[in-house]
Amino acid sequence: MSSQSIANETTSQHPGPLRLGIAGLGTVGTGTVKIIQKNAAMLAARAGRPIVVTAVSARDRQKNRDMDLSDYAWESDARALARRDDVDVFIELIGGDEGIAREAIMVALQSGKDVVTANKALLAIHGQEIAEFAEAQGRVVRFEAAVAGGIPVIKTMTGSLAANRINRVMGVMNGTCNYILTRMESAGLPYETVFEEARQLGYLEADPTLDVGGIDASHKLAILSSIAFGTRPAFDAVEIEGIERVSIDDIRRAADMGYRIKLLGVAQMTARGLEQRMSPCLVPADSPLGQLQGGTNMVVIEGDSVGQIVLRGAGAGEGPTASSVMSDVIEIARNVRIPTFGQPAARLEPAQPARTAVPAAYYMRLELQDKPGALAKIASVLGDAGISIDRMRQYGHADGSSVPVLIVTDKTTPDAIDFAIETLPKTGVIVGEPVELRIEEV
Amino acid sequence: MSSQSIANETTSQHPGPLRLGIAGLGTVGTGTVKIIQKNAAMLAARAGRPIVVTAVSARDRQKNRDMDLSDYAWESDARALARRDDVDVFIELIGGDEGIAREAIMVALQSGKDVVTANKALLAIHGQEIAEFAEAQGRVVRFEAAVAGGIPVIKTMTGSLAANRINRVMGVMNGTCNYILTRMESAGLPYETVFEEARQLGYLEADPTLDVGGIDASHKLAILSSIAFGTRPAFDAVEIEGIERVSIDDIRRAADMGYRIKLLGVAQMTARGLEQRMSPCLVPADSPLGQLQGGTNMVVIEGDSVGQIVLRGAGAGEGPTASSVMSDVIEIARNVRIPTFGQPAARLEPAQPARTAVPAAYYMRLELQDKPGALAKIASVLGDAGISIDRMRQYGHADGSSVPVLIVTDKTTPDAIDFAIETLPKTGVIVGEPVELRIEEV
Repeated sequence: MSSQSIANETTSQHPGPLRLGIAGLGTVGTGTVKIIQKNAAMLAARAGRPIVVTAVSARDRQKNRDMDLSDYAWESDARALARRDDVDVFIELIGGDEGIAREAIMVALQSGKDVVTANKALLAIHGQEIAEFAEAQGRVVRFEAAVAGGIPVIKTMTGSLAANRINRVMGVMNGTCNYILTRMESAGLPYETVFEEARQLGYLEADPTLDVGGIDASHKLAILSSIAFGTRPAFDAVEIEGIERVSIDDIRRAADMGYRIKLLGVAQMTARGLEQRMSPCLVPADSPLGQLQGGTNMVVIEGDSVGQIVLRGAGAGEGPTASSVMSDVIEIARNVRIPTFGQPAARLEPAQPARTAVPAAYYMRLELQDKPGALAKIASVLGDAGISIDRMRQYGHADGSSVPVLIVTDKTTPDAIDFAIETLPKTGVIVGEPVELRIEEV
Repeated sequence: MSSQSIANETTSQHPGPLRLGIAGLGTVGTGTVKIIQKNAAMLAARAGRPIVVTAVSARDRQKNRDMDLSDYAWESDARALARRDDVDVFIELIGGDEGIAREAIMVALQSGKDVVTANKALLAIHGQEIAEFAEAQGRVVRFEAAVAGGIPVIKTMTGSLAANRINRVMGVMNGTCNYILTRMESAGLPYETVFEEARQLGYLEADPTLDVGGIDASHKLAILSSIAFGTRPAFDAVEIEGIERVSIDDIRRAADMGYRIKLLGVAQMTARGLEQRMSPCLVPADSPLGQLQGGTNMVVIEGDSVGQIVLRGAGAGEGPTASSVMSDVIEIARNVRIPTFGQPAARLEPAQPARTAVPAAYYMRLELQDKPGALAKIASVLGDAGISIDRMRQYGHADGSSVPVLIVTDKTTPDAIDFAIETLPKTGVIVGEPVELRIEEV
C-alpha cells in the first residue's frame, strides 16, 4: 500500500477533487477563494485530494472583487447553487438567521451536500433543526468560522477536549466591543465618542446593537454551550447585557483596583441548570482575559481532566475567518464526519436554563452625599443583604456635594446584589443610581 | 437513516466498541484509565461507539495504582500487548526513544493496530521511519500528548490551521524550566537553589538535563516544525541552549527593562532553510509569553491567513496529558485517519537546517571597569560590528571597581552579536564575560 493511500482509503467513494460551491462573496467568501487560489498544492497535500471551486453565487455579479472568478460557474440564486450536481460541499457565507441562508442550507442538505457555514445567528437559533436534518440526511454541517473567527474553538471542543466533562466556557468573542472598551481606557474617551469612531472605521455591523448590545457574542456563546454541555443551542436563554452602560468612570475606577472591564460570555452547568450570561464584567488586569487588547478574541475552556485551556487570536477579518472555513473543508475532504454539535443531535438535551446564581465578587460604585453617617447607612444595607466588603475606597470631594465610593465585595450571590442595588437609593444618602458589575473569576 | 448513523457510517467495519491496549501505567497511563472509567457514557456519545480497555501492561504488576484493573487482561511484555487480537489501538505510554517503546509500536503497526503515543523523544528522532511504516501498513499514529500536555497543538496544526502556510511556530513547552525561571524572579533566588527545590518537588526528569538542558522542549519543537513546514522531524538540527546559564542578575535586569526570560523554542522557515532554536530569550513582560507563570505551557502559531494564534494550558500532569491521549483515541473511534505529520510521510522534505540568521534585538550585560573612556571603547566595538544601540543603562558603583552596563540593541544579526561578544573582552575594559540574550519578537 503506498504511503499516499492512508489519506485516500476512506475517501474511495470520492477519488477526485472535492468540489465547492461558495454562496456569498463578501469579505469571508473572497478570502476563502483567495486561499484556494494561493495554496492549492499545499491544500491538496494536506487534505489528501485537490480542493476546487466549481460555482459561486452572490447578489451582485458586477462588483469588482479584485480576483479572477472566470473559472467558476455563476449562480444568481444560492438555492440553485446548493442543488448543483458538480458541488460536493455547499459553503454558506451569506449570513442572517432567516431567509436565503437558511433555505439554501436546507436545500443543500436535501440535495446530499455537506455544508460549511460561518453563520452564528442561524446556528444559535435554528441549530437543532439543522443538525437533526443534516444527520437524517447523513450529511455534516461544520461551522468553525461561526465562533471567534480564526480561533479553532469548535474543533478544540468537539475534538481535542472531547474526553473532558466541561465545567465552564468563557470568552471575549466580539472584537468590536473589546476594541471600544480598550480604546476608552487607553484614550480616556467616553463610550459615545469611541462608538462613533468605531462606526467610522467600519467596525460596526449595519445594526450596531448586534455588536454593542451583546447579541452577536451571545449567538457564539449559545453555540459553545451546546457543544460543551450536550444541550440544544438555547440563544433565547442567554442573559444578555451590552456594553452601552459601561462608563469611562467605571473603566478608570476598575483599573485603579487592578481590573479591566470586558464584555465576557460565561456558560456554566450548575445543579439548577445551565447558566449563560453575556455582560460587562471585571477581570484581573493581569489575567489572560484582562490583557486582551483591541479586536483580539479569547476563549477559555475548563475541563475536568485538562484544566484550563486558553485560545487567543483574531476574532474576525478576511484571512482568519477564511482560514476557519477552509479548516472545515479540509476535514470534509479527509472524510472527518462528526455530528454537528459533537454528538448526535437526537442526544442533545433541552437546555434547562437557570438564572445566574453562581456566587462572585462584585464591584459597586456609588455617589455618596457628603454628610455624617452616610457611609454607615451604606454599610448597614450591605450587611442586611448579607454582603461583606473586601475592599472599599472613598475618593476626594470633587464638587463638595458628593463623593465617589468604590466597593469590591466578597463573594456573594446575584440576588444579594440585586437586593442591595434596589435598597441603597432608599437610604437617602446616595446621588443617582449605584452601579454594579460582576467580577468573574477567571 | 437514524440520527445516530452519522457517527457510525464510516466505522461500519468496527460496529462494536473500540478496544484499547495500554502499555505503561505511570501518571499518564493511570490518568487515561481513570478518564475511561469515569466518563464512559459521555465518551461513547461523543465518539459514536463505546471505548473500552481490554488489556494493559506495565513493569510492576504489584504496584498499588489506586484503581481497579481487574477487568483488563495483563501482559508483562508490551510487545505481547501490541499483538493481541482483542486490541484495536495500542497506546504507548512507556517513553524513551529506543528499546521497548519503539519496538512495541512497530509490532503494533505490523499487527494492524493504530497507535497513540505521548512519546516526544521517539517521534522527534524516529518519527519519519515510524510515519512511513504506519502509512505503509494503512495505520495511524497519533500523538497529541507528546507536545505541550493538555494543549491541543497537534490537532490545531494538522487540522484547524491546515489551510495556512505557517510562518513561524514558537513555544514555552517545558513547564519545569518555566517554573524555575518564574520562581527565580518571584523569590529572588539563584538558579542553583531553585533547581534544588524543583528536584525535591519531583518536577525534574530522572536525567534533569532533559528539562533544564532544553532537550525535552526541543523534541517537541522538532515535531511541531515537521507539521508546520512539511519537513521530516529534525531534532538533531535544533540549536539548543538550556537555562543553566540564566542568572538571577539577568532576570532582574531584564525585568528592569520590561522583559522576562523564557526558555523559548522558535521554528521558522527562511530562504536559507529551516531555523530551529531552543534558548533562553527575552520577551516583553506584558506579552502572552511574558505573562506565562509556573508550569503552564504556551504555543504561538503564525499562519499566512489566520495571523497569530496563541494556545495556553497545562503542559504536563495526569489529567491534561491523559485528556490529550483520549482525544486521539476518540478521533480514531470516529474514524478520523490523517497522516502522522499532517501529510503523507513520503511527501515530507528533508529539513535543510539553517543556523539562526533572522535578525533580532539583543540584550547584553557587561561589567565595565570604572575608568575613563571605557564606555567609548564598548560603543566603538558595537559600532564596528554594525550594531546600533536602542537603549543603554549604566548602574551605580557596587564595589567601586566595576559597574554593570545593560544594552538593548536595535535589530541585528546573530553574526554581528557573536563578533561583538568575541571582541568586547579584547578591549581590556570589561570584567568577566559579557552576557547576550536574544529578544525574540513575539
